[in-house]
Amino acid sequence: MNQSHESRTPPIVSVDVVLLTLVEQVLHAVLLRRAQAPFAGVWALPGGYIHTNEDADAQASAARVLREKVGIAGAYLEQLATFSGPARDPRGWSVAIAYCALLPVQQLPAEHADISVIPVTALPQLPFDHRAIVDAALERVRNKSLYSSLPVHLCGERFTLPQLQQVYESILGEPLNKVSFRRKMDEMELLQAVPGAMHSGGAHRPAQLYRVKPAFRQTLALAPRGL
Amino acid sequence: MNQSHESRTPPIVSVDVVLLTLVEQVLHAVLLRRAQAPFAGVWALPGGYIHTNEDADAQASAARVLREKVGIAGAYLEQLATFSGPARDPRGWSVAIAYCALLPVQQLPAEHADISVIPVTALPQLPFDHRAIVDAALERVRNKSLYSSLPVHLCGERFTLPQLQQVYESILGEPLNKVSFRRKMDEMELLQAVPGAMHSGGAHRPAQLYRVKPAFRQTLALAPRGL
Repeated sequence: MNQSHESRTPPIVSVDVVLLTLVEQVLHAVLLRRAQAPFAGVWALPGGYIHTNEDADAQASAARVLREKVGIAGAYLEQLATFSGPARDPRGWSVAIAYCALLPVQQLPAEHADISVIPVTALPQLPFDHRAIVDAALERVRNKSLYSSLPVHLCGERFTLPQLQQVYESILGEPLNKVSFRRKMDEMELLQAVPGAMHSGGAHRPAQLYRVKPAFRQTLALAPRGL
Repeated sequence: MNQSHESRTPPIVSVDVVLLTLVEQVLHAVLLRRAQAPFAGVWALPGGYIHTNEDADAQASAARVLREKVGIAGAYLEQLATFSGPARDPRGWSVAIAYCALLPVQQLPAEHADISVIPVTALPQLPFDHRAIVDAALERVRNKSLYSSLPVHLCGERFTLPQLQQVYESILGEPLNKVSFRRKMDEMELLQAVPGAMHSGGAHRPAQLYRVKPAFRQTLALAPRGL
């Protein structure tokens, strides 16, 4: 570090969050209407500055953005990548530390004038490089769903194995073999049966309800050989 | 973004690079002796500030750091993760966009008083959170070597298939089956034979020399089902 930090304009630093949920088996992203310039009034990813007086790290900044601007807590969060350069933000050379967040749709607030939940295949034109950030998040979620427990974070607290399989299939865009899916879930040691809790599914016989073991509520379980 | 960017201290932003090479089949990292405070005189990862007046993005900053401080060009570079928080740098709340770089040892400059090439298992105590950054890089390189062409960036321009297999084995820490290794290399469509170029390996009969196809010199080839 030959030159002092003060000798040139430092980059602008923000966090941006691709918050994904599953609505009727289709991946949706949550967009907020921007309150301020640049792009005031335009739909964009939830984001904001790092608050160096209160945030423990950039992930804490992302969690705070979700809490303060979307009104949610407890989403699964992971760092996606950092996007940077002189042109992505009209205010100047900027760094966006991007996060991917997953939340069951039941835990999202209702849509209103400034918050919208939109299928990822039908997003409007987004400001900054937010489209590239969304695309990176979708690629990450699809790839990681092939070998990890990531999709459980789109399920409610309790779910049946057929429901979980359907969540995986919705993300991967293809049907999975039931027997091998269940073996992979077993191998990941991800789930615990909820004692005595059964789901009555219409014409089917009642199915056991499961939940994620506490150890895997913020970290992923991995399936070493993939699904 | 409710509050203006100027209303609180912005984070310090830097890039840090874990530059890895292979010396006698052992992964080594390149450390530089820090010229300035904090930690002046201490061995650390190559790093520096983003130059917003010249860098096209943070990866260009990382490439510039390698060029100016290590004296190398053309290393394979990929973004690793961004490390952040109030405690990692004594100067204040900081963001380090970390990169992983791979280079054949033949392209490294000679060691001197301020540059050292050290086995990753024998690194000295490192300042900041550089140990955590190195650990993340090693995990990334080992994981990605299971399903991609990443290790070729540790080879010189021309190599035989047994030499390439040995590079993979050095990173993964285990022997690989020769037949399945060669099939995976074929599936990735990564290599081209160098016409007429053979390697004379002592007692063995001469072996064909290969090089990486131009398409995969800065992007990875992927083996969908792993090695």
